Amino acid sequence: MFRPIGLRVLVERLEEEAKTASGIIIPDNAKEKPLEGKVIAISKEVEEDENLPINEGDIVVFAKYAGTDITIDGKEYLVLNTDDILGKIEK
Amino acid sequence: MFRPIGLRVLVERLEEEAKTASGIIIPDNAKEKPLEGKVIAISKEVEEDENLPINEGDIVVFAKYAGTDITIDGKEYLVLNTDDILGKIEK
Amino acid sequence: MFRPIGLRVLVERLEEEAKTASGIIIPDNAKEKPLEGKVIAISKEVEEDENLPINEGDIVVFAKYAGTDITIDGKEYLVLNTDDILGKIEK
Amino acid sequence: MFRPIGLRVLVERLEEEAKTASGIIIPDNAKEKPLEGKVIAISKEVEEDENLPINEGDIVVFAKYAGTDITIDGKEYLVLNTDDILGKIEK
Amino acid sequence: MFRPIGLRVLVERLEEEAKTASGIIIPDNAKEKPLEGKVIAISKEVEEDENLPINEGDIVVFAKYAGTDITIDGKEYLVLNTDDILGKIEK
Amino acid sequence: MFRPIGLRVLVERLEEEAKTASGIIIPDNAKEKPLEGKVIAISKEVEEDENLPINEGDIVVFAKYAGTDITIDGKEYLVLNTDDILGKIEK
Amino acid sequence: MFRPIGLRVLVERLEEEAKTASGIIIPDNAKEKPLEGKVIAISKEVEEDENLPINEGDIVVFAKYAGTDITIDGKEYLVLNTDDILGKIEK
Repeated sequence: MFRPIGLRVLVERLEEEAKTASGIIIPDNAKEKPLEGKVIAISKEVEEDENLPINEGDIVVFAKYAGTDITIDGKEYLVLNTDDILGKIEK
Repeated sequence: MFRPIGLRVLVERLEEEAKTASGIIIPDNAKEKPLEGKVIAISKEVEEDENLPINEGDIVVFAKYAGTDITIDGKEYLVLNTDDILGKIEK
Repeated sequence: MFRPIGLRVLVERLEEEAKTASGIIIPDNAKEKPLEGKVIAISKEVEEDENLPINEGDIVVFAKYAGTDITIDGKEYLVLNTDDILGKIEK
Repeated sequence: MFRPIGLRVLVERLEEEAKTASGIIIPDNAKEKPLEGKVIAISKEVEEDENLPINEGDIVVFAKYAGTDITIDGKEYLVLNTDDILGKIEK
Repeated sequence: MFRPIGLRVLVERLEEEAKTASGIIIPDNAKEKPLEGKVIAISKEVEEDENLPINEGDIVVFAKYAGTDITIDGKEYLVLNTDDILGKIEK
Repeated sequence: MFRPIGLRVLVERLEEEAKTASGIIIPDNAKEKPLEGKVIAISKEVEEDENLPINEGDIVVFAKYAGTDITIDGKEYLVLNTDDILGKIEK
Repeated sequence: MFRPIGLRVLVERLEEEAKTASGIIIPDNAKEKPLEGKVIAISKEVEEDENLPINEGDIVVFAKYAGTDITIDGKEYLVLNTDDILGKIEK
């Protein structure tokens, strides 16, 4: 599996429908509306940073054009800098 | 619910009328006059920063074009960096 | 009332006449001559910074185009970053 | 042999085929997709940085145009800044 | 009187003639030659900074276009950032 | 002799032929390929920096257009910032 | 006499001939070759900085267009930032 390095996390983008369950709707046409994704893996540095309460399984909201696309085992993921993460959904 | 991450807070914009109660009028035509909003949620980092006395329920004043729009449960909110917050209204 | 946040203070601009009392004349036509104002409120951070001896009631001198205009209870004020404050008048 | 200095590592690029074994496919035509390589040597500074868990033999993923080409004993390598390393493949 | 704030001092420019006494001649036509002035007031921060041995009464030499003009009791002064002070004349 | 100051070292460029012995070939026509040189002197600061294991006699590899040319006793040398040093050849 | 302030030293430029004695020749036509000068005075800050082994009387080599010209008692000197000093000649 892929382990991020530095202040980075690996995220799987959430499609529009999946999002209505969590309540956050990010309409396509909106100007630069942030996007949503599920955290798949976090780096050692993120794990040890108390001010970055981000864990595997969290649903995070991030700036639209942030991150780098990467394909693992044929599936599309995004490597995100934590600076680009606006917040997360708390149950 | 949405929990901000980093030096950020979640804010609900206050419409013009609501503002007259607090005394701060931000006329539309004014050049880049700052805006006002109610704090809905703050990040862990803000909570623990003594120099950022911002709490849920505060009415804050912020630079006009600051922040990122976000919709939660069909309602419009703004994710703000604390740098963009000029001050708050004290009762 | 309005409480500044971060390294900021709230200032009420002093009109030309009021200034002759304190001795500092800032003629309008002068190129980028600094301006003067009375400190109405300071942030917690300014209060606790020993290198920023700025208190409510002080008359401060600041760079001409600094700060953000704000109207409170129909009166015009200026929110200033302390970096833009050149100094203050001591009795 | 070559020993990197500063926050740098020496990497040998992995050709496309070699990658299917590790599961990460970086198709040529993709826009700025990151690349992959095997770590040949790390600097003293990287070795002692707990937040940079990068070791010789690791397969790392890095930004497409990062690093400086270098030829050692007729073989092509890349000297990479650790900032450009997105993450590594964990077995 | 005016008390500077931050890393600033208040200086009175020395006219060309006055300078011949201290030995430093700054001919007008010279390209960007530095200027000279007498220190009238220093900020609390400068006072407490051991690496800034600048005191009231010192004659300092500073970059030509540095500082902000200010008029106090009808007299012209200059508010200078200490970064712009090249050095001082020692008797 | 010349003693560098700050994070700098003095280097004597190695001509192409000399390099085949150490194994690193830096062909002229290659785009911005890094260059090689022998360390003649290091500054006090470099000497005391544990993260900069660079000593007199080392063969270092550095970015093509880095450094400042200097002639000592008729011989050409280069004064290099350590940031521009990619690594060194270890026997 | 003139005492530099901040990370600065006062230097007297060495003419071409004087330099042949110390061995460093800085031919005029050479592109941006560094220059040489004798240290006349150093600031308190330089005096106390262990990583800046620069003393009065040292012959230092510095970047061609560095520093600010200053005339003292009719003689031309240069006020240099220590960043612009590449190194010094050791007997």
